[in-house]
Amino acid sequence: MLIAAQGEERRWKEAMTARLPDATIYTQDETYDPAEIDFAMLWKQPQGMMKSLANVRGIFSLGAGVEHVLSAPTLPKNVPIVRLEDAGMAQQMVEYHMYAALHFMRDFDHYMRSQNEGDWHPRDVAEIGDFRVGVMGLGALGAAVASRLSELGFTVSGWSRRMKAMEGVTTFAGAETLDEFLGQTDILICLLPRTGQTEGLLDTARLSKLPGNAAIINASRGALIVEEDLLRLLDTGHLRGAFLDVAVNEPLPSSHPFWNHPKIRLTPHIAAATRIGPAVDQIAENIARIDKGETPLGLVDRDIGY
Amino acid sequence: MLIAAQGEERRWKEAMTARLPDATIYTQDETYDPAEIDFAMLWKQPQGMMKSLANVRGIFSLGAGVEHVLSAPTLPKNVPIVRLEDAGMAQQMVEYHMYAALHFMRDFDHYMRSQNEGDWHPRDVAEIGDFRVGVMGLGALGAAVASRLSELGFTVSGWSRRMKAMEGVTTFAGAETLDEFLGQTDILICLLPRTGQTEGLLDTARLSKLPGNAAIINASRGALIVEEDLLRLLDTGHLRGAFLDVAVNEPLPSSHPFWNHPKIRLTPHIAAATRIGPAVDQIAENIARIDKGETPLGLVDRDIGY
Ligand SMILES: NC(=O)c1ccc[n+]([C@@H]2O[C@H](COP(=O)([O-])OP(=O)(O)OC[C@H]3O[C@@H](n4cnc5c(N)ncnc54)[C@H](OP(=O)(O)O)[C@@H]3O)[C@@H](O)[C@H]2O)c1
Ligand SMILES: NC(=O)c1ccc[n+]([C@@H]2O[C@H](COP(=O)([O-])OP(=O)(O)OC[C@H]3O[C@@H](n4cnc5c(N)ncnc54)[C@H](OP(=O)(O)O)[C@@H]3O)[C@@H](O)[C@H]2O)c1
Repeated sequence: MLIAAQGEERRWKEAMTARLPDATIYTQDETYDPAEIDFAMLWKQPQGMMKSLANVRGIFSLGAGVEHVLSAPTLPKNVPIVRLEDAGMAQQMVEYHMYAALHFMRDFDHYMRSQNEGDWHPRDVAEIGDFRVGVMGLGALGAAVASRLSELGFTVSGWSRRMKAMEGVTTFAGAETLDEFLGQTDILICLLPRTGQTEGLLDTARLSKLPGNAAIINASRGALIVEEDLLRLLDTGHLRGAFLDVAVNEPLPSSHPFWNHPKIRLTPHIAAATRIGPAVDQIAENIARIDKGETPLGLVDRDIGY
Repeated sequence: MLIAAQGEERRWKEAMTARLPDATIYTQDETYDPAEIDFAMLWKQPQGMMKSLANVRGIFSLGAGVEHVLSAPTLPKNVPIVRLEDAGMAQQMVEYHMYAALHFMRDFDHYMRSQNEGDWHPRDVAEIGDFRVGVMGLGALGAAVASRLSELGFTVSGWSRRMKAMEGVTTFAGAETLDEFLGQTDILICLLPRTGQTEGLLDTARLSKLPGNAAIINASRGALIVEEDLLRLLDTGHLRGAFLDVAVNEPLPSSHPFWNHPKIRLTPHIAAATRIGPAVDQIAENIARIDKGETPLGLVDRDIGY
C-alpha cells in the first residue's frame, strides 16, 4: 500500500498500520517497488506518481473530493476510485454552515459593521422560518447540512442531480430546475463536487436568479463560482454578502479583492477536515470489499466526475 | 388595563384587543382613571406611574426580566408580578448562542483577524466535544440554550440556584459550586436574571476561575459583569474573547472601550425579542388565572428578585 498525503504521511501510516497490522505500507518518500503496490491512498499526490503503479487495485482519496485524482493524466484505467463519505466531515460542515447561515439571518454581518462605526441601533429580530436556505448538492455533506438547518428552523430546499426525498427539505433535481431553485433561495449553500458540469456554474446569469439581498456560502470548491461575477453582484448590491472557505487559487493571493471586501467573510479552507479514525475504517472496509470482488462504498463514477 | 411599552403601545394594544375583545385597554399616553386599572402590562414604564394604580390586581412585564418593575419605588404591595416565559425568546437565544459559541469553537474569531491581515493559514479543526460550555442560569432561556448546544455536540454543564436534572447537561447548583463550575468551563454563557445576588457576580475573582483562554458570552444583563475586570482579563490574555449583547450603560457610550476592542464582538441588545403573539396569549391566560384565584405562571418572587 502507498500513501501520498502532502506531508501528513506519517499520521496516516501509523493509523493504517494499527488498523491493518499485516499490510506493508509505504509513504511516498520511502523506497518501494511500484509493481508491488496494490492500493494507493492519495491527497494531492505528486504529478506522474500513478504511471508506474501497474498492479494497483484501488485508489482512495483522503478527502471527499476526487478531482485531484481524476485530473491525473497517468491515471490507470479500470481501477476503482473511491472517495471518503462523511468521515467526520458532515458534523464539521453542519457547524460551519450553522454559523455562516446565522451570520446573515441574525444580521451579524450588519452588526459587525455597526461595531466598527460605533453605532448602537437594534433592528427587529427576523423569524428564522422566513429565511429560505437553498443547498446545492445533497450528498454526504449537503444532506446533513440541509436537515440540521431545517431542524434549527430555517425553511430549507435542496438541489441535486437525481431526485431525492428528504424530511423537512423541499427537493429539486436537474439543470432544468436550477433557476426555480435559485429564485426561492435567500441563503445559497454550495456543497457540490467540482466536475465538468459544476465548474463555473455560479456565474452572473445564475447568481442573478437569486432574489435581491441573497447571501452565498461556499465551502466546496472555489472553481464553482466565477469570482469576478460574484464581486460584481456584491458591488451592485444584488447580493448581500458571501461567506467563503475556498477560492479558485489557494492560498488566496495577497492582492486578491476578497481579502478586504466589506461584504465577504473568508476562512482558509477549514470548513471540514478528514478525521483519520473513521477514514481509516472506511478504507479498510473497502479494501476488504475489493478483495471479495464487491463494490466499494463511495465508488466514483469517472464519467460524471464524482 | 394599562399598557406602557416605550413607544410600542399601539402594537400591544392591537394584539391584546384581538385576544381579549371585551377588555378596556389604555395606552399610557391616553386619558384614563387610575382607579379603574385592573392590570398593567409594562416595559420600562415612566417613573412614578404605578403610585396611582390603587386597584391593580396583576403587573405583567413585557420581557423576561423584571428588574425594571421591581426597582420602581412606588410598586404596590401584595400584587402579583408576572414575567414572560419564553414567548418566542428561547428560539432566538438558541440561535444567538449557537453562533457565538461556534465563533470561538471553530476559530472564527481568529480567522476574522487573519482576514484583516491577509493571512491564509489553516489551523486544525477542533473537536466540538472537547469544548466545555458552561451555562449560568437554567431558566426558560438558559435551559433551552444548554440542551440545544449539547445536541450540537458541545460538552455542556449548567449552574442554577436550585438543583436541576437535565438530559445531556451536567448540573451544578448554588454559590458554593460556582468555582468548580467555572473551573471546567471553556465558553461561559450568562443567562441569569439581574438581581441583588447576580449584580457584579462576574468580577476578577470569578472570571479568573475560568481556565486560561476561556471565552465569555453575555446576552443577559450588562450589570452582571464588572466591565473593567473583564477588560483587564482580556488584555492580560487570560480570556480569549467576549461576545456581548448587553452593557452596563445602553446605548453603549461612544467612548466605551468595548467598541473597538479586538477581542470583543458586540451586538446592540438584540439577542432575543419578545414575540407579541405568544406574549399576549400568556398574559391573557394569566389574567384568567388571577380572576379564578389561581397562581399565574411566571410569578416573580419579590424577595429573590426574579
Ligand atoms: N472546504 C472543505 O473543507 C471541504 C471539505 C470536504 C468536502 N468539500 C467539498 O464538498 C463536496 C461535496 O462533498 P460530498 O461528500 O457531500 O459529495 P457527494 O456525497 O458526492 O455529493 C455530491 C452532491 O452533489 C450533487 N451533484 C453533483 N453534480 C451535480 C450536478 N451536475 N447537478 C446537480 N447536482 C449535482 C450530487 O447529486 P446526486 O445526489 O444526484 O448524485 C450529490 O447530491 C466535495 O466534492 C468537496 O469538493 C470541501
Ligand atoms: N439580551 C436579550 O435580548 C435578553 C432577552 C430576554 C432575556 N434576557 C435576560 O435573560 C435573563 C434570563 O431569562 P429567563 O427567562 O431564562 O429567566 P428565568 O426563567 O427566571 O431563569 C433564571 C435562571 O437563573 C437562575 N438563577 C437566578 N439567580 C441565581 C443565583 N443567585 N444563583 C444561581 N442561579 C440563579 C435560576 O435558578 P433556578 O432555576 O434555581 O430558579 C434560573 O435557572 C432575563 O432575566 C433577562 O435579564 C436578555
